[in-house]
Amino acid sequence: MNHLSSPAKSINQTDIDGAMAYQLTLTKPPGSLGLLEDIAIKMAGFQGCLKPQLNNIYISVFAGDHGIAAQPVSAFPQAVTTEMVKNFAQGGAAISVLARQFNANFEVVNCGTLFEVDKHKQIIDGRIAAGTQDFSVQAAMTKEQLEQALELGKQAAIRAQQKQSQLFIGGEMGIGNTTSASALAATTLNLSPLDMVGPGTGLSPDQIPFKAQLIETALALHENKTPLDTLQNVGGFEIAALVGAYIHCAQIGIPVLVDGFISTVAALMAVKINGSISPWLLFSHQSAEPGHQKVLAALNAKPLLDIGMRLGEASGAAVVVSLMQSALALHNEMATFSQAGVSEG
Amino acid sequence: MNHLSSPAKSINQTDIDGAMAYQLTLTKPPGSLGLLEDIAIKMAGFQGCLKPQLNNIYISVFAGDHGIAAQPVSAFPQAVTTEMVKNFAQGGAAISVLARQFNANFEVVNCGTLFEVDKHKQIIDGRIAAGTQDFSVQAAMTKEQLEQALELGKQAAIRAQQKQSQLFIGGEMGIGNTTSASALAATTLNLSPLDMVGPGTGLSPDQIPFKAQLIETALALHENKTPLDTLQNVGGFEIAALVGAYIHCAQIGIPVLVDGFISTVAALMAVKINGSISPWLLFSHQSAEPGHQKVLAALNAKPLLDIGMRLGEASGAAVVVSLMQSALALHNEMATFSQAGVSEG
Repeated sequence: MNHLSSPAKSINQTDIDGAMAYQLTLTKPPGSLGLLEDIAIKMAGFQGCLKPQLNNIYISVFAGDHGIAAQPVSAFPQAVTTEMVKNFAQGGAAISVLARQFNANFEVVNCGTLFEVDKHKQIIDGRIAAGTQDFSVQAAMTKEQLEQALELGKQAAIRAQQKQSQLFIGGEMGIGNTTSASALAATTLNLSPLDMVGPGTGLSPDQIPFKAQLIETALALHENKTPLDTLQNVGGFEIAALVGAYIHCAQIGIPVLVDGFISTVAALMAVKINGSISPWLLFSHQSAEPGHQKVLAALNAKPLLDIGMRLGEASGAAVVVSLMQSALALHNEMATFSQAGVSEG
Repeated sequence: MNHLSSPAKSINQTDIDGAMAYQLTLTKPPGSLGLLEDIAIKMAGFQGCLKPQLNNIYISVFAGDHGIAAQPVSAFPQAVTTEMVKNFAQGGAAISVLARQFNANFEVVNCGTLFEVDKHKQIIDGRIAAGTQDFSVQAAMTKEQLEQALELGKQAAIRAQQKQSQLFIGGEMGIGNTTSASALAATTLNLSPLDMVGPGTGLSPDQIPFKAQLIETALALHENKTPLDTLQNVGGFEIAALVGAYIHCAQIGIPVLVDGFISTVAALMAVKINGSISPWLLFSHQSAEPGHQKVLAALNAKPLLDIGMRLGEASGAAVVVSLMQSALALHNEMATFSQAGVSEG
């Protein structure tokens, strides 16, 4: 899997410096647009131009089922993963609505739902298996399955490039996947599962300690020497696909807007596999899932939004697109002090 | 000024309850869209319908100069207020750019710039005087001027109603107005000016204690028996106009999206004058100005965004419009569990 370690595309420092200098000429006190200025400057570096654009967004939602869902770790039955894949494609899910709002390219990649899904133009059929294995009993997937899942993500990045997308957003759907993500993050960050687990889709508070105990027992079962081992042992098809997508996006120069807890764990695994990709990751929001804050801190990430979202599907990231568009509109369209005849401070 | 105390329009509780119940039928775990769900539910109450819309937004930026700017309280010269009024109208200011992005009705109300401004179709000429008086020496304005300023705000609310706007955003521009706002908030909340003052447009840290001391001395000069006294003694024309606009919007049933520090202080004064208006106020963002958090807390307000903005002009509120539009798109367009055939938890 040599391609995973290829370096990320380099970022244009001249345009970053140029965009920073240009921000100082605009009719506002320096720094007064806060993080919106940072976004515009980063996008200038990504696109290698002084006036970056953001009107072509690619959203891939990766779906997969989890063997661990045989245990009582979710408020919803496993069938929901398959049902939601259809709902994504038919336009009724949250991310479907938001993709329409921002006129984004939108696809669902079926990485391995428990049940089969009928063909649909917005569904990429990449079903590796009918879900992963229960990682409290055995490895979630084989090495070959891990490679397939990473490749599904890479292919999504390639499709985004073919569409000349300026931003890649990955989403995930998979009943049980907060359990998998919590296990990945706990072992990677050497934290207790109790520090990481939360209600997911809606577990009651008394069910959460069981989830933590289950992860603790499961982690004792596996030998995780490398991030790829961890991903194979306790990961999920859709999480591995996100990892593959994030790494390839950075390699081909498409910035990534990371969604919530599970996507951020995928970003953590991607960075552990290939540290050079970090500068290409933007973080959209702080979710209500308690482990998210710890994973964001480990990535030194400052998300833009903190409004208690915890849906996944790329929905939190999609909501942040408009903030990025405002940032670029301000950067590109505001008058300078000299153009407007405004006195400087 | 009897009209100031007329009660706010009542909010439709049936539609709030209906919208809350409807949210539970949508294909997502209950509550998983966080504050976006609250926005949709509130808008249902404001508009008295189950599926509220937000495509007609009214933005008024009120501008006025401050006598207190004769003291060293700002990083920018006073001429900038007048120059920025022109920049707003010519489309080069941050709020001009954002108003275009959201296709909002946009106007600038000149409440009293130091210098005259040429006529322009986007400028409402309401110039009360060439700025307020220096409130460290005397009352900032006369009682009659206060009434004129409040009326300028009321008239903006009436224009928003004539345009059938679904949201009112007020902005402000006035060199020296963080000093006025800090004085208003400190005396109204009985806090020390030192707890309230910040860098404004960009004072250096060593200039801030002077600003606090100036306010403390000035406050000792004035007898502020009522919120209207306070507004007259240490307020500004544009701040009083915001107060008048907020109160009248609530009375005629147009929800208000409050911007940053100065706008939030105007909201505080408006609520102190007429407590019934509170439910009509939405709070957009937590600015970088240190006093803002204390004023928000006093209003029990939880703003949506905290990204270090401190520009004013309504810019923070305008950026939040897209989050509100996402909230309504999700509420109105997502499929229900039964429509999508998705199993409930």
